[in-house]
Amino acid sequence: MKAVVIRDGAVSWDDKTSPTIGEDELLVRVEAAGINGADILQRAGRYPPPPGIPADMPGLECAGTIEAIGERVSGFRTGERVMGLMAGAAQAELAALHQRLALRVPAGLSPAEAGGFPEVFCTAHDALFSQGSLGIGDKLLVTGAAGGVGMAAVQLGRAAGADVVASVRNPELRGRVEALGAVCAEPAKAVGLGPFDVVLELVGGPGVAQALATLAPWGRYVVIGTGAGSRVEVDLGVVMARRATLRGSTLRNRSLEEKATVVRRVEHHVLPLVASGKVRVVVNEAFPFARAQDAYEHFAAGGKFGKVVLTTGGPRA
Amino acid sequence: MKAVVIRDGAVSWDDKTSPTIGEDELLVRVEAAGINGADILQRAGRYPPPPGIPADMPGLECAGTIEAIGERVSGFRTGERVMGLMAGAAQAELAALHQRLALRVPAGLSPAEAGGFPEVFCTAHDALFSQGSLGIGDKLLVTGAAGGVGMAAVQLGRAAGADVVASVRNPELRGRVEALGAVCAEPAKAVGLGPFDVVLELVGGPGVAQALATLAPWGRYVVIGTGAGSRVEVDLGVVMARRATLRGSTLRNRSLEEKATVVRRVEHHVLPLVASGKVRVVVNEAFPFARAQDAYEHFAAGGKFGKVVLTTGGPRA
Repeated sequence: MKAVVIRDGAVSWDDKTSPTIGEDELLVRVEAAGINGADILQRAGRYPPPPGIPADMPGLECAGTIEAIGERVSGFRTGERVMGLMAGAAQAELAALHQRLALRVPAGLSPAEAGGFPEVFCTAHDALFSQGSLGIGDKLLVTGAAGGVGMAAVQLGRAAGADVVASVRNPELRGRVEALGAVCAEPAKAVGLGPFDVVLELVGGPGVAQALATLAPWGRYVVIGTGAGSRVEVDLGVVMARRATLRGSTLRNRSLEEKATVVRRVEHHVLPLVASGKVRVVVNEAFPFARAQDAYEHFAAGGKFGKVVLTTGGPRA
Repeated sequence: MKAVVIRDGAVSWDDKTSPTIGEDELLVRVEAAGINGADILQRAGRYPPPPGIPADMPGLECAGTIEAIGERVSGFRTGERVMGLMAGAAQAELAALHQRLALRVPAGLSPAEAGGFPEVFCTAHDALFSQGSLGIGDKLLVTGAAGGVGMAAVQLGRAAGADVVASVRNPELRGRVEALGAVCAEPAKAVGLGPFDVVLELVGGPGVAQALATLAPWGRYVVIGTGAGSRVEVDLGVVMARRATLRGSTLRNRSLEEKATVVRRVEHHVLPLVASGKVRVVVNEAFPFARAQDAYEHFAAGGKFGKVVLTTGGPRA
């Protein structure tokens, strides 16, 4: 089969041995696979995958059609469309997807939308609700809200009855983020719209100290991305005075059962919203798998709204 | 009545108007009242009390005998021995204690022990369990464990089935902290005994970054004291990789219902252990109220084991 392969800091669409599935896995004929920040780090050799996952095969999510199932799989049949989370090697013609990390694709979702759904919606749902305990009437700040996780978080926050403020650096993208249901402003102004019950930090760097100071009493500060810098100064006096919580996490290095819990929560809480059209997967651009290097460059350049996805079809938005 | 009064950065035992009690309050003839870090900050003008509490009357806890009760008080009678949390003005001959913040004193507890119990045991219990979710078999690090909160936390951690490591700077105090059930070492060595599921930070300063790096996956870092510095550098990459949580809090600025919840939990979980002698209130030194300034100086000097308490009796250990 063909797969996206990392070699010397670049990616290409190359021959690889097809995966063999375990008894709990689905063999998926992949139609689309999203690109995530972790892929860019892995391409640069700075995000070694967990044990058992080839370091040269990126991709944390995919969507496609089930071609074969392991002997202990129940509830999925060949020919069904699925999407799901993987620990790597998802950007390939064939992928071995664990049944507990798989979701049936709602009717009406395009391949590109399905391929770009799992990672950002699982990440955003886990961060907002399991970690941030976001609830009705909470005020939520999403920093760097134009990217994939931000796009998902803004919509999930609104769906849960929160007031959502989104900070977006690029002024051209603000209108589109506002259309998802957030009040959108440049970072310095967005912070001024607090106090916030929950902050979802997708940027990191010097803005963290400022945003931390805008937390309401019992506020939760959840760190998911630190592209602008991970070493920050924290005033513990502020944390204590607000009885605040600062949390961080990544999805990838969790155990199978932890990831499965997240996926099952997303199935229950989010899929119905996607099926009804209340929540949508914003696809910035879809590239054919053979143009993986272009797609990675496009992703890494930043300043875009929504997901960058690789598909077997031609480019589509 | 007489009360400890703050004037120009010093304290004295002076005349003050007796408190009048509200309908939910107990008028307590105080026998003992512990000194806490917040009193020292308040003496220096750096910890303004909440609205309605006189800025010149320190004291967050007391123990004594009920002299009168408000008309809505139920479950307490005059003549009973009680101890409890106050938002200030506890170091006085008479104190107005809210019934939901009051605890009956277990038989066998001396006045000094009772007067030194509420604040540190409520703080430690809230930090370890409500904030840190400490459980059986968790590994707990208590930094600066020789003080009042540390003495309480070490014992509560052990009582809950946790493995407790205590960092204590003063080598002369380590044996006494070990006798409470902890493995005790100097800070640099104690940190090396991780990974820790929960860290109770009572010191702050540069040691925080080091201790944060010793957290186990899903570890909880609870900040209660920052005497050595509150501005610290935090590596959010470490926080994310460990899926860690950093929390901070103070008890004093919480609402009545929040404090009442803490006090009721301590009544249920901790008082039986105190009554049976499994957990003890370590009193470092008891001073008569008239020697409040000496007692404050003794507290502020640090390097002691257990609580410093003001009492109506003579000095006793």
